[in-house]
Amino acid sequence: MTAPQRIPAPVDPAKLPGNRVELGRKTPLRLDCGVSLGPFTVAYRTYGTLNADRSNAVLVCHALTGDQFVAEPHPVTGKPGWWDLMVGPGRPVDTERYFVVCANVIGGCMGTTGPGDADPATGRPYGLAFPVITVADMVRAQALLLDHLGIERLFCVIGGSMGGMQVLQWAASYPERVFAAVPVATSWRHSAQNIAFHEVGRQAIMADPDWCGGDYYGQNRRPQRGLAVARMAAHVTYLSEAALHRKFGRNLQDRNRVTFGFDADFQVESYLRHQGSTFVDRFDANSYLYITRAMDYFDLAAEHDGVLANAFRYRGRPTPVRFCLVSFSSDWLFPTSESRAVVHALNAVAANVSFVEISTDKGHDAFLLEEPEFYEVIRGFLDGCAEHYGLRRIAGPVS
Amino acid sequence: MTAPQRIPAPVDPAKLPGNRVELGRKTPLRLDCGVSLGPFTVAYRTYGTLNADRSNAVLVCHALTGDQFVAEPHPVTGKPGWWDLMVGPGRPVDTERYFVVCANVIGGCMGTTGPGDADPATGRPYGLAFPVITVADMVRAQALLLDHLGIERLFCVIGGSMGGMQVLQWAASYPERVFAAVPVATSWRHSAQNIAFHEVGRQAIMADPDWCGGDYYGQNRRPQRGLAVARMAAHVTYLSEAALHRKFGRNLQDRNRVTFGFDADFQVESYLRHQGSTFVDRFDANSYLYITRAMDYFDLAAEHDGVLANAFRYRGRPTPVRFCLVSFSSDWLFPTSESRAVVHALNAVAANVSFVEISTDKGHDAFLLEEPEFYEVIRGFLDGCAEHYGLRRIAGPVS
Repeated sequence: MTAPQRIPAPVDPAKLPGNRVELGRKTPLRLDCGVSLGPFTVAYRTYGTLNADRSNAVLVCHALTGDQFVAEPHPVTGKPGWWDLMVGPGRPVDTERYFVVCANVIGGCMGTTGPGDADPATGRPYGLAFPVITVADMVRAQALLLDHLGIERLFCVIGGSMGGMQVLQWAASYPERVFAAVPVATSWRHSAQNIAFHEVGRQAIMADPDWCGGDYYGQNRRPQRGLAVARMAAHVTYLSEAALHRKFGRNLQDRNRVTFGFDADFQVESYLRHQGSTFVDRFDANSYLYITRAMDYFDLAAEHDGVLANAFRYRGRPTPVRFCLVSFSSDWLFPTSESRAVVHALNAVAANVSFVEISTDKGHDAFLLEEPEFYEVIRGFLDGCAEHYGLRRIAGPVS
Repeated sequence: MTAPQRIPAPVDPAKLPGNRVELGRKTPLRLDCGVSLGPFTVAYRTYGTLNADRSNAVLVCHALTGDQFVAEPHPVTGKPGWWDLMVGPGRPVDTERYFVVCANVIGGCMGTTGPGDADPATGRPYGLAFPVITVADMVRAQALLLDHLGIERLFCVIGGSMGGMQVLQWAASYPERVFAAVPVATSWRHSAQNIAFHEVGRQAIMADPDWCGGDYYGQNRRPQRGLAVARMAAHVTYLSEAALHRKFGRNLQDRNRVTFGFDADFQVESYLRHQGSTFVDRFDANSYLYITRAMDYFDLAAEHDGVLANAFRYRGRPTPVRFCLVSFSSDWLFPTSESRAVVHALNAVAANVSFVEISTDKGHDAFLLEEPEFYEVIRGFLDGCAEHYGLRRIAGPVS
C-alpha cells in the first residue's frame, strides 16, 4: 500500500561511546505525573577531569533534539559535537579546567531510558506506556546521576533552549547544588505559539500510519515521514527570515529556472528536505512526542503560585545562584522579552544576575553557531565565577 | 492497515450557488509553464449591479484557501463570507455602489478547473497531470472572465495575501484595465521563509499514504491527515505570538490540570486541531499543493529583469493605476517591510500610491478580522477614487 522505505536500525545504546548507569533501583524516580520510574538508565558523556575537591563540575543540558555528544563527533551522524564551539579545550567551557558532564535526557533515544526502551513490566518497548515526563523530571534524573558521580555541587549548569529550561529548573529545584547558572535562548514557560508549533509536529507524527499508535517498535516500521515533517516544521522556527533570506533567498537548486512541478526547485526546499530526512536516522519519533510535551508543560511560574520570582527564593532569601542569561535578537521562538522577564523576576528577589542580548540575524539556532560575542560573554562570566568560587586552574597553559 | 476514516464527498461544483462559465474553448489559456489549457471552467460570484457604462466593477481576489463566497454564508461550512466585513451593502466595497466579482482561482477546488476536475484528454481527474499554474495564470483566467462579462476596465481590484499578489499582477499585466489597486498584507515575491512553510505543508500532504501520488480521486481516499497537518502548520503562521497569547495563553481545554498525555490539554492545541479537521471538509489536497506552488513562484521583480519598479512602467510612463497598500504591524508572514518595498518601487516610477500600516496584534489574519481603521482606510481610498473616476452612486441612500 505504502511505498517501501528504508527503516534504519534504531540506535543500539550498547554501541554508543560513553557511560551508562542504572539509577533508581533502590528508590525509584518519582515523576511529576505520579508514576515511579525505576530502575532506569542514564547515558552520559564526560570531558575533562574532576578535581580533588569535586568543585569543577559543569553540567551541560541539551535541547530538544540534542544528546550527550556535546564536544565530540556524533556517533551516528559523524558531525561535530553540537556545542563544540562552547565546550572543549580552550573553549569557554574549558575542558582543561572544568569537568563537563552531559547526559541524554530521560525520555530520550540516545541511551537514556525512553519510550523506545523495554518496559521491565512487560519486556516490550514502552511506546506510549512510557510515562509523560517533565523538565523537572529530567533534572531529577540528572541530580541522581550527579549523586552517583559524587558531585554534590555544580560549579555551573548551562544549556540553551530546552537546555536553558533545565538550567532554570536546576536553579529553582536545587539552588544549594548550583553555583552559577547560564540559561541561553530560553524561557520560564513555553508560549502558546511554541506549544502550537510542537502540536503540529506531534500531529504530523501521529498522522503517519507507520506510527501505529506508538507501537511501531519491532514491526520494522517507523513513522519516518511524519517525523521528517515534524522536523521540517520545527526547523523553520529555529531560523530567522533574515537568515533564510541571506542563506537561500529565492535561489534555485541546481537549475536555471523553475520546473513547474513539486520537486525541490528552491534551495530552501532542498535544505529543509535534507533536514527532515537526516533527522529520522538519529531520532525516535516517540521521544520527539515526549520531549516536546515536556517543553510544553514547562512553566516555572505556575510551579510557584504563578509568581516567577518565587522560583528564585531560597529559605526566605534570594537564590544563592549567580545567573548569566543570554538571548539573541532575531530569536522569535524564545524572544529576548522572555529572557528579560526572567531577569526581572531575579531582580525582584535581588539575585545576582547579568543579561546580554546578542545582535544576530541567525534566529534561535544562533546559540549553536559562530557568534563570537556570545562565546566571549560566557567565557567572561565563567572566568569571573571561577575566581569567586576559588576555582584554580587544574590544567592548561599557565596564565 | 490505517484506521478507517470519514471521507467527505468532495464538493460538487454543480450544487454550489453562483455562476460557472466555460472559457478558453476557442483560444486556450497559454499558461506560464507552456501548457495550453482549454476549455476550462471558472466559478464566480457577483454582488451588486453593473452600471450602464460598465464602470463600477470591483474584482476581489481571494487568498490561498479562500474562494468566491466573499460576502455570503459559505455553502459548505455555513460560516459568514470570508470578507463580509469588507464587501456588502454599506461596507467599504459597497455592493450598493459597485458591481463586485469574485472568482475561484484556477487550480482551486470550488468550481473553477483544478487538479480534482476531469482532464478532457482522459476523462479522469487530472491529479498531478494538472499543469502547475502561477499567479499570472490566475490573473489571465480572471481577465478572460471579465471579457466574458463585458467588463473592459475595472474600477478596482482588491485582495489580501495571495489575493494581493493577484492585485499586483493585475496592475503589472493589465495596467490599462485597472483604475485602482488595493494590495493588502502581501508582497511582490514569496520569501524564503514563506516558501519553507509551504514546503512543510506540501510534504505533510505528500507523506500521507492516502495521497496516492495525487491520484486519490475516485478511490474513496483523501489525504485528510496530511492536509490537516499542512493547515495547522500554516494556521500558526497566520497569527501572531501576541494574538495567540491573548486568545489562548497556556489556558487548558476543559480541564483543571494537564493530563500527562497527548490529548489536547491546551486550548491552543484544541483550536489548531479544529482548524485542521474542519479545513479538510472544504478543501482539496492537490489544490493546496498547486496554489501554494503558485505563491512560491510569484516574483514580480524577476518577471521584470529583477527590477520591481519596471513592473509599474507602462509605455515609458508611470503606471496609470492608483494604489493603496495596507500592511499590518504584527504580520510576520508578509511583514510591512515587503509592502514598503512595493511602495518604494512605485515611488521610483512616480506612480500614484498611498500606504498605511495598521497597528494590530492579530498577525497576517488581521486583513480578515475586525480592524476598524483598516476598513476606514479602504473606504476613504475607494470614495476618493470613485470621485476621480466620475463614478456616480447608483443605489443606496442619497448623500
